[in-house]
Amino acid sequence: MAHIQRDKKKLLTRVRRIAGQVAALEQALEAGDDCDAVLVQIAAAKGAMHGLMLEVMAGHLNDHVVAEKDPAKRASEAEVLLALLKRHAR
Amino acid sequence: MAHIQRDKKKLLTRVRRIAGQVAALEQALEAGDDCDAVLVQIAAAKGAMHGLMLEVMAGHLNDHVVAEKDPAKRASEAEVLLALLKRHAR
Amino acid sequence: MAHIQRDKKKLLTRVRRIAGQVAALEQALEAGDDCDAVLVQIAAAKGAMHGLMLEVMAGHLNDHVVAEKDPAKRASEAEVLLALLKRHAR
Amino acid sequence: MAHIQRDKKKLLTRVRRIAGQVAALEQALEAGDDCDAVLVQIAAAKGAMHGLMLEVMAGHLNDHVVAEKDPAKRASEAEVLLALLKRHAR
Repeated sequence: MAHIQRDKKKLLTRVRRIAGQVAALEQALEAGDDCDAVLVQIAAAKGAMHGLMLEVMAGHLNDHVVAEKDPAKRASEAEVLLALLKRHAR
Repeated sequence: MAHIQRDKKKLLTRVRRIAGQVAALEQALEAGDDCDAVLVQIAAAKGAMHGLMLEVMAGHLNDHVVAEKDPAKRASEAEVLLALLKRHAR
Repeated sequence: MAHIQRDKKKLLTRVRRIAGQVAALEQALEAGDDCDAVLVQIAAAKGAMHGLMLEVMAGHLNDHVVAEKDPAKRASEAEVLLALLKRHAR
Repeated sequence: MAHIQRDKKKLLTRVRRIAGQVAALEQALEAGDDCDAVLVQIAAAKGAMHGLMLEVMAGHLNDHVVAEKDPAKRASEAEVLLALLKRHAR
C-alpha cells in the first residue's frame, strides 16, 4: 500500500489543521486584525505546509525509492524529489 | 488607514485562493491521488502562502516603518520584521 | 557612519570564518571525504552565509530606513530589502 | 567510485568559485562598499552554496540510495538526506 494510503489519516489531520489556520487567517483579515498578528499567523501556516511537504517527501523517498526493487523505477522516483527541491527549497 | 484595511480585498482574494488549494489537497488525499501530484499541490500552496507573507511584510514595512514619522515607532515596527525573518526565512 | 563601517570588524570576522569553512570544504573534497560529512559542511557554510545576510539586512533596515529622516529615501532603501526578499527568501 | 570522487573536478570548481565570491565580499567590506552591493554579493554566494548543496544531495541520492542494492543501506542513506532537509530546508 502506498504511503499516501497508509498515512492517509495522519496526512488528512495535518491538512485539516492547515485549513483551519487558513480559515482563521481569513477571519483575521475580515476583522482587520493587527498586521503583526496576521504575519505570525501566515508564518505559522506556511511552516505547517512545510512540515506536511517534508512528511510526504519522506514517504515518497522511503516507499518509492528505498523500498523499490527495480533500479530504473528508483531512479525516476528519485528525480521527482530532486525536481521538487530544485524548484522549492532555498 | 493601515495596509491590512487598504489591501483587505486583495489579501482576502489571495487567502481564499489558498483555502481552495488546501481544500483540493484534502480531496486529493481522500481520493488517494498519486503522491507526485500531491507533492506538487503542497508545494504550490506553500508558494502561495510565501507570496502572501511577502505582500503583508511589504505593506508592514511601507506603512509602519517608511511612512511612520516617529523614529522610535519605526524602530519597534522594524523589529517585528527582523524577528519574523530570523524565525522563518532560510 | 554607515553600519557597514560601524560593524566592519564584526562583519569581517564572520566573513573570514565563512572563508575558513569554504577552505575546509575544498580540502574535504580534495581528500575525497565521505559525502555525508561534506553535506553537513556545506549546510553549515550556507547557514553562516544566511546569518551574515540577516545581520547586514538588519543594519540596512535600521540605518537606512529607521534612522533616515527623509521619507523618500526611506522608501527607496526599503525597496532594496523587499527586492532581496523576493529574490532570495523562500 | 563514489560521486564525490567522480564529480571531484566539477565540485572543486564550484567550491573555488564560492571561495572567490567570499574573498570578494571580504574586500568589499574592507573597502567599505555600499551595503546594497554587499547584500547582493552575500545573496549570490549563498545561492551558489545552495546550488552546490543540491548537486551533492543529488549525487548522494543517486549513488547511495538509487544505485544501492542493499535495501537496509538504501534506508540509512535516505535518512541522511531527510535529516538534512529537516534541519536546513524551509
